[in-house]
Amino acid sequence: VNFTDIEGKLKSQKVPMVISLPEDDESILAAYEAYQLGYVECLFVGNPAVISQKIDRLGCAFSPEIISVSSEEEAGSKSVELVRSGRAKVLMKGNISTPKLLKAVLNSETGIKKGKLLSHVLIFEWEGTLRFLTDGGMVPHPTLEEKQEIISNAVALAHRLGCETPRTAVLSAVESVNFKMSSTTDAAILAKMGDRRQLGKCLVDGPLALDNAIALESAHHKGLFNEVVGKADILVCPDIDTGNVLGKTLLYFTQVPAGGLILGASCPIVLLSRADTKEVRLNSIRLALAAGA
Amino acid sequence: VNFTDIEGKLKSQKVPMVISLPEDDESILAAYEAYQLGYVECLFVGNPAVISQKIDRLGCAFSPEIISVSSEEEAGSKSVELVRSGRAKVLMKGNISTPKLLKAVLNSETGIKKGKLLSHVLIFEWEGTLRFLTDGGMVPHPTLEEKQEIISNAVALAHRLGCETPRTAVLSAVESVNFKMSSTTDAAILAKMGDRRQLGKCLVDGPLALDNAIALESAHHKGLFNEVVGKADILVCPDIDTGNVLGKTLLYFTQVPAGGLILGASCPIVLLSRADTKEVRLNSIRLALAAGA
Repeated sequence: VNFTDIEGKLKSQKVPMVISLPEDDESILAAYEAYQLGYVECLFVGNPAVISQKIDRLGCAFSPEIISVSSEEEAGSKSVELVRSGRAKVLMKGNISTPKLLKAVLNSETGIKKGKLLSHVLIFEWEGTLRFLTDGGMVPHPTLEEKQEIISNAVALAHRLGCETPRTAVLSAVESVNFKMSSTTDAAILAKMGDRRQLGKCLVDGPLALDNAIALESAHHKGLFNEVVGKADILVCPDIDTGNVLGKTLLYFTQVPAGGLILGASCPIVLLSRADTKEVRLNSIRLALAAGA
Repeated sequence: VNFTDIEGKLKSQKVPMVISLPEDDESILAAYEAYQLGYVECLFVGNPAVISQKIDRLGCAFSPEIISVSSEEEAGSKSVELVRSGRAKVLMKGNISTPKLLKAVLNSETGIKKGKLLSHVLIFEWEGTLRFLTDGGMVPHPTLEEKQEIISNAVALAHRLGCETPRTAVLSAVESVNFKMSSTTDAAILAKMGDRRQLGKCLVDGPLALDNAIALESAHHKGLFNEVVGKADILVCPDIDTGNVLGKTLLYFTQVPAGGLILGASCPIVLLSRADTKEVRLNSIRLALAAGA
């Protein structure tokens, strides 16, 4: 599966997407771009006067439904309610603060938490296939339990995007177990859980250095031969720093197509950064729509 | 490899074996039985008068060389010296106390410690093949590092006895990883170390419940399919209690041929218990000779 396949899937699907407080240029433009491509039906949650004025000023030729709210808190809870009721299939953050949006998502009574943990996945295309990098954005120092959830979220996303048995590499700096490096012992434990099918339909190996995970020749040089090495679909990072720097390196030093999602809620959440390029914005929405629809 | 193969190997080998303080009936009888079978040349270390009198009284028709010592400490250090100098290939405990013998073995200047850890292995024959159970006798609550050494000692023994690539099962009560059971997470880590060839020439899987390790049908019922399950040569117990009770169950509730050894020194150490049957005594010596020669 790659971005071209995803685009093909989305043609004229018009997936309903709610945008929480689209009162900034970036989120309105992103929604408009997706609308122009025929992918989405937009539901805006915010101040109608502010939003309409922005839409006009940006020259966007569309008039999405606007659900009126009078505060950030209300924007969060209303947006989430639209997902809960089934009216929206994807949630996108607008100008609402991330903590306020997540608070609404995680509310134990009115929220839309589905898994045990919210996690971030960067999806990028490399050698013609979507790869999933996690978690460089949500969980600072994941415990073993949290790593299990991070993998579970990524595996579920891969399945929804058409990767039936994602090859999952649990990364470390080395491919051998070293009792003094918890990234290696955690990886070994998670790999065995994969063997025992405790992580759903996927193949897991680890510890693996990044090159062992994505370059077959490099894996073979190290004497590693299995179904995961050299062909990993999912790259699981030992912590947020590793995940973040790997993701940023891909985004800023290469030209690989990429997008990001927050997983673990009942629908994918698009949480764009102001620094995201138009292509990253659109890719993130494409992925959310493909996974959420 | 089974006990018949071991016996075949030993015919008229006359391996030199030192017995430390053979001043009790059991060790003299054990040495004599092995002597009668043509397996050993005995070197006795103790009080010549006491030993000669015992030999006569027991009606043993042999006169082994007796190296005279005047204390338990001297018996320990002299016995170990005979191994260091190459005169003896196997060391057997007689009436010397276990701590005193081990102290001599472990002495950093004059001792014969070879590996990083001394460990106990019970070797038993089941379905025509020698199986290695460890550690039910030496290491109380092994850490991961100690489990690695326990496996290393058992693998080296299996190699010496002709099992080229021992299938090694790291046991727990269950075959799935459970973060609350360190026996499962340790087993997963050790299994991955086996995959990465960090444990020498062997195949490792774990966590495995005992039935998964030794009964193929049971393993298949649990959906376990690999080269180790159902056919394990080496059974690695999570702690000494588990190992001890598994070993005692085999010895007292079944008729499987069995013997025990202490590993991790430059030669195998036979450390018999008064409760050992004649067959267990002889088997232990046979195994020590076969592994040490």
